[in-house]
Parts: sequence; structure tokens; C-alpha cells
Amino acid sequence: MSATYLDIVKETDCVPYPGQAAYATEVEDSSYIFLSHDGVPIGRIVTAVVQQIKKEPDSFEVSDASRSVRIVIDTLEARNKLFADLALRWKNENLFAVLLGWRDELYTVYNPTTVPYFAVERAAAALFGVVTYGIHIVGYIPSHKSKDGELKIWVPRRAYNKATFPGMLDNMVAGGLGNSCGILETAIKECGEEAGLSVEYVTPRLKAVGVITYFYRHTYEDGLALFQPEVEYIYDLEMEPDTIPQPTDGEVAEFTLMSGQEVVKAMKAREFKPNTALVQIDFFIRHNIITPENEPDYIALLQSTHRRFEYPTR
Amino acid sequence: MSATYLDIVKETDCVPYPGQAAYATEVEDSSYIFLSHDGVPIGRIVTAVVQQIKKEPDSFEVSDASRSVRIVIDTLEARNKLFADLALRWKNENLFAVLLGWRDELYTVYNPTTVPYFAVERAAAALFGVVTYGIHIVGYIPSHKSKDGELKIWVPRRAYNKATFPGMLDNMVAGGLGNSCGILETAIKECGEEAGLSVEYVTPRLKAVGVITYFYRHTYEDGLALFQPEVEYIYDLEMEPDTIPQPTDGEVAEFTLMSGQEVVKAMKAREFKPNTALVQIDFFIRHNIITPENEPDYIALLQSTHRRFEYPTR
Repeated sequence: MSATYLDIVKETDCVPYPGQAAYATEVEDSSYIFLSHDGVPIGRIVTAVVQQIKKEPDSFEVSDASRSVRIVIDTLEARNKLFADLALRWKNENLFAVLLGWRDELYTVYNPTTVPYFAVERAAAALFGVVTYGIHIVGYIPSHKSKDGELKIWVPRRAYNKATFPGMLDNMVAGGLGNSCGILETAIKECGEEAGLSVEYVTPRLKAVGVITYFYRHTYEDGLALFQPEVEYIYDLEMEPDTIPQPTDGEVAEFTLMSGQEVVKAMKAREFKPNTALVQIDFFIRHNIITPENEPDYIALLQSTHRRFEYPTR
Repeated sequence: MSATYLDIVKETDCVPYPGQAAYATEVEDSSYIFLSHDGVPIGRIVTAVVQQIKKEPDSFEVSDASRSVRIVIDTLEARNKLFADLALRWKNENLFAVLLGWRDELYTVYNPTTVPYFAVERAAAALFGVVTYGIHIVGYIPSHKSKDGELKIWVPRRAYNKATFPGMLDNMVAGGLGNSCGILETAIKECGEEAGLSVEYVTPRLKAVGVITYFYRHTYEDGLALFQPEVEYIYDLEMEPDTIPQPTDGEVAEFTLMSGQEVVKAMKAREFKPNTALVQIDFFIRHNIITPENEPDYIALLQSTHRRFEYPTR
């Protein structure tokens, strides 16, 4: 049987919510809450990682009674150094499979909201279960500009040699938000790198249209299922019918112009990278393609793609 | 100090979330969970209402130990009759101030999702803390069609004799979703009643663009603070520059064409009906007016206006 949209969303927003019965067994029993030095929850750390953190008593205070890990370092600079050293050491000791995807790129954790609290290697963020951020851009030709009068969406296939989700379908442009990088700035830069679109072309056409937020949990090759609360800033990019996006950085194998029905079919056949499908669903909802009349899970789709976290965010 | 967008949202999505410390004191201590006959949570009933329900032992099973009210009637027809009789009796006995706003209009409660479980008088829904549904339509002229090149929004002022929020600003068209009424059907009908727009004008222009969901709690004249989880289906209606909406049913005093900045100013001065402001904020986010660059609470705004309920929905 073909997947429903809600099946697809629930595979990505797969962590139980506080107050649900499964929250105790699936979340609390398998992890410790990660606290800032001033006691604010900022992530979820699985017990296998907590065992390693116990070896760092100068930096972290671990309580088995309250199942919490509190960072005791109270300056940004010292925290940045701590996480840089720790991630590199764990990588060199080959402790966790997730670090095989080392990116040499820093992500920022916030506390309180909007204030950088520390930076951490992108591949190591999931070990601490902290919120990470990306941008996704849906490139489309609206029906009134389309040659056959039907809305079209530019869909790339990920390069077959990518570390994650090789060969799967994706959004026209997507990328992670690095430490101290602006959101719109990253979106514009990625349009150049991933689709060969110039700053002049993109700037007047790029429209911020919201975020999706979901709480993912992914099992890595060593069997560790790490917590990954994620925020994706969403942009619509209305393309001219004669503009062809060009892969330039090797991350994309090819671009295809697809109708809404073709996207739906590919999505339900699980050809899309999972969180990418959520962005397409969000696009379909905002563009009157998925409607209250044709979708029984309309409300749940919007709620599960805008999930509240218990942690401060950017 | 002028309100932030998040201040405005939080006044409407004002009930603590499960897992937050305030959930126990503000929600659990002041109310009982309302269960379907098959044990599914469908609402929140404040203790003063529970005292009245205890007088109906043939219809409800009340447990003080588990702080729950379970309806024991297992057919739709019998439940419909029960709630019709109970609401009318409580109204005639003048038990609750909320029933002074009697509408003689039925709302539907769902269990499981999408399946009608019972119908209840609109004014009585809050006594059971069940989810209610409405439609909101933002009528706007996009910048490329606007005479001065700036996006404009049609904003009505509510009639000064309305029972609720008289004289406040509102969305162009809004209305409750009555029992067995379609969503799009209601949207089209309300466009005629509230703005004098024909079916022929509205049908090709009306675009479904999502829902907002929030958990409101309102204190009535008798001091009871009732739980009101609400879903509003949102539509954008792109208007032609020469179309002037006309109040026809007496619910609207006047329509004004406002710029985005004028709407923001009025919203922050608290001139909008509270949940209406949430719809305008959602519109601003979807139309690149509120952006990640100009709004520090961007993520929280989207999460708080798409709140997950613990109850089945339409």
C-alpha cells in the first residue's frame, strides 16, 4: 500500500511528544536531558554517549538520579574549545559511527533564544541531541507562467556519491546553516553552488515562507539512535520558464522539471530524501494542492511539521 | 511598550503545554480530562462544570481519583440528544455565563479523527473544552496588482453590536464551521454573507493555504476560565484592485484597505480581535513580510500557531 502523507511525516517527526505514554519509554528511558550551565534544557543525549561524557568531570556534571548532563563551563569561548576538542578526540578514537560523516563545518547551539551558546562540529551535533538548522528552497514555475498551464517543480537527484541519501530526490536547493552564517545569505549562496543561479537572479525572487520543525531520530551504523531536533527555513523561488538550474558543485546528479502529480507519486514511492518530502508537503499545502477537501490528515500534517521543541532555538 | 508578535500569539495560545511545569497547576489542577466512551481524550472540563456533570450519572462516569469524565453513551444519536438536552437545560437554569452567548448553531466533535462523535451547541462547546473549527479568509491585493505597487489587505471592523469583540478589527471573512458543513463550502458562503462577493468571483480565487491551531482559555463573566482548543482553516483571496467588499449581513461596520504597515501598527496597538491577529501573522510569514531576518521569534511564532492537541480533530 502506498504511504499517506502523514506516514511520511511521522517517519521524520518520529520522537514521541511530552505527555504521551511512549515519551517515557522511548525518550526518557534511553537518554539524559542535556542542560546548559544555567539549567536550561538544550538537548537529549543517549546513554551510550553519557558514558563517554562521564569521563569529562571537569566539563560536565552528570546526575544518574535526575538523568541529566549539565555543562559546567560558563563562557562561550571555553565551551567552543571544549566541544571542538571533544568531537575531534572522539572522532580520532573512532567512538561513534556518526562521526564518520565528519563535515569540518560548525553548527551553533542557542541559549537563550537567538543567543549563540556554543558551536559544534556538524557531524557531532546529534551526539548531544541539540537543535540544528538548514534552509530548503522549492524552485517552481507557477501555472500562469508554465508552458502547459500546469504548476511545475524543479527536482534534483542527489549525487550517487553523497555520504547521506545518495541518488534520492531532493529540493532544488538545500543546505545546513553554518556557525555565524545568515539565513537569507546561506539561501542565496546555496542557489549559486547547487543550482548555478546568480545572486541577481535569486535575490528579487526568493520569498521566505516559514519554517518546518520536527524531531527526528536516526539509527547509525553502530546501532546508536541519536536525537535530532531540526529546523528548516523554507523559501519559495518562482522560476522563469526558460531558466534551467545547473548543478555546479557535484552534489546534484541532474535536475528534472516535474508536475505536482509526478512529485506526489515519487514521494509516496519513497524516492525523496525523507525531510525533503516534508518541505514538498508544506509547499503543496501553501499552494492549494493539498487541501482540507482532499487530505484527511490536513491538520495533523501542519502540526507535525511545526513541532514545538523544549529547547531554545535560533 | 508595543507588543511583540509573540506576545500577541501567546495571549491566544495561552494554555501551558504537556511536560511544562505550569501544565500541572494551570491545566490538571483546574480541570478533568474529558474522555470518549472508548477512553480517548477529547477535551478538558473545568471543575465547576464537572460538579454539574456529576448530577448526570446515567450519561457520564466521573472519577475524582483519575480526574476524568467519561461519557458512557455509545451511539452518535444518543450523544447528540444528550448534549442538546443538557445544554438547553443548563441555559434555562442560567448556570453558566458562556451560555448567554447562545448561537442556536451546532458544532461537531470528532473521534476518531474525521469521524463525527457528537454535535453540541456552539456556545456550550467551551464547557466541555472540545476542539472547535472555523474558517478565516485574508482578502488582499498583491503588490503587482496594487495601484501604488504595495501589497494591500482588506480589513473589516466588527459591528459595534456584535456579542463578542464589538468594534474590533477582523479578517475580511471569518466564520464558524457548523455541524455537517463543508470547509470550502463555508468559506464561499461566508464570502457572500460577510463581504458581498459572489460564488463566481470567489471560487477561482480562493486558495487553501493551511490551518492555525492554538489552545485558548477565556474567562467569562461568571469567572469561569474555559478551555478552547481551536482550529482555523486559512484561505488567501487575491482580490482585483477594483473590487470593493460590501458588508451585507450586519456583522461588519466597514471595510478599509490597509497596507501591511498599517495592519502591523493596528495589531500591535491591540485593535485586532486576538485570534484574527494570528491569521494576519500567518499571512505575513507566508508572504515574506515577517522574515527570519526581521523577526527574532520567527520559529516560535510558527510553532505556537500550529500547536498539537492531545485530542482527535476533524
